[in-house]
Amino acid sequence: MYTMNEIVVILSGGIDSTTLLWYLQAQGYILKEALTFNYGQRHSKELVSAKSVVKQFNDSFEQNLIHRIIDISTIKDLISAGSLTGDKSVPKDFYDKESQKTTIVPNRNAIMLSIAVGRAVTINARYVAYAAHASDYSVYPDCRPEFIDKFDEAMYLGNLWTPVNILAPFKTMSKTQVVTEGLKLNIPYELTWSCYEGKESPCLECGTCLERTEAFLENQKSDPSLTSEQWDKAQKLYRKHKSE
Amino acid sequence: MYTMNEIVVILSGGIDSTTLLWYLQAQGYILKEALTFNYGQRHSKELVSAKSVVKQFNDSFEQNLIHRIIDISTIKDLISAGSLTGDKSVPKDFYDKESQKTTIVPNRNAIMLSIAVGRAVTINARYVAYAAHASDYSVYPDCRPEFIDKFDEAMYLGNLWTPVNILAPFKTMSKTQVVTEGLKLNIPYELTWSCYEGKESPCLECGTCLERTEAFLENQKSDPSLTSEQWDKAQKLYRKHKSE
Repeated sequence: MYTMNEIVVILSGGIDSTTLLWYLQAQGYILKEALTFNYGQRHSKELVSAKSVVKQFNDSFEQNLIHRIIDISTIKDLISAGSLTGDKSVPKDFYDKESQKTTIVPNRNAIMLSIAVGRAVTINARYVAYAAHASDYSVYPDCRPEFIDKFDEAMYLGNLWTPVNILAPFKTMSKTQVVTEGLKLNIPYELTWSCYEGKESPCLECGTCLERTEAFLENQKSDPSLTSEQWDKAQKLYRKHKSE
Repeated sequence: MYTMNEIVVILSGGIDSTTLLWYLQAQGYILKEALTFNYGQRHSKELVSAKSVVKQFNDSFEQNLIHRIIDISTIKDLISAGSLTGDKSVPKDFYDKESQKTTIVPNRNAIMLSIAVGRAVTINARYVAYAAHASDYSVYPDCRPEFIDKFDEAMYLGNLWTPVNILAPFKTMSKTQVVTEGLKLNIPYELTWSCYEGKESPCLECGTCLERTEAFLENQKSDPSLTSEQWDKAQKLYRKHKSE
């Protein structure tokens, strides 16, 4: 029924999931659909970035990757109490600090993965991939290998007639290492969006902005989504928070 | 933060999940919320039954169980191709037959459980329960203990700061045994709805109607949701399909 290398990918429009598209393509997977979830996040700007990313992917590789934005914003008021979808303000702090726990949307990855698996079964794709990576372990338990491995087994067993496996090829890489991979693949990082605030320009000091700056700095590159003025500011804010 | 016996229950409005409410109450759990999912099912009539069931539960026990209908019908067109949400007709056949596989909504239980777990974390409940039982094993792999156990572990690990466990107390019981438990607890089965067709009266020969008839027959009771004329017809159809 299904071909063994077809895959559905969860794409936020940020650095990690954008890298994942190019990375899986390079590994020989056939990317069938990229799913972007609108779960009521403050930074819904990432939905626009995701769209541009898929367009660029299709242009670069002459592919026909379908992009779907899945609206599950009805669950926003049920599952929240945090800073990404709720009333709390986004913490201006380093990404591995305790304060970042307000950015947890409870069980978000399981919810997105479960829907993606249902979609994979429906279109006969064998895999679902997402861009969990090691820099997120300290705050987000649903990015850790222990979670990924159990969830993968559950998805296999729960869909036994048409089993699906979960791939998370960055699960042991830091964000810096993800960007190292991405830079080799000439990924158009200027199209991506990370900032949790979702304002006109990135705030440069929420957890995900600081982590992004670190990843480019450690790769000795500037962030191509920023003007040189913004990049100077990003580095200053990074050093300020690093020394705190 | 949370008390150890608070629980969120997935309630379809059918026999099994209705029994689960009374069963958990008898076991000493504090039932916080019952979640009913509108996933675009043909038999949306069960949503109305679920509402009556919760009302009766609250009246019987002077409780304040909150009932929420969660609308995830936006995923209907993404995840389907079957007979419950798609264009195929509902098979008139015994519940453990191969034909019943068209009633699978891919990964439905994982999707509902994931959202319920997110809700449980949000309201500080320690458990999520659903009414998977052994009569469903042959068709629905997401009702089997192997799936339940892995998914439970994944939910614990994925929400490690506020872990949630999945309970499925009927996982090794047949539907007949579930009804045996329910009859001891005086459950108002007349309020429940099972039929996949969702028409004015139950069709009495889809998989879930036949399974329901069997459960009451094996408990030497008539189905209190049916008139005596309907119950006669139900038994005839049961014997007809059983002998096929």
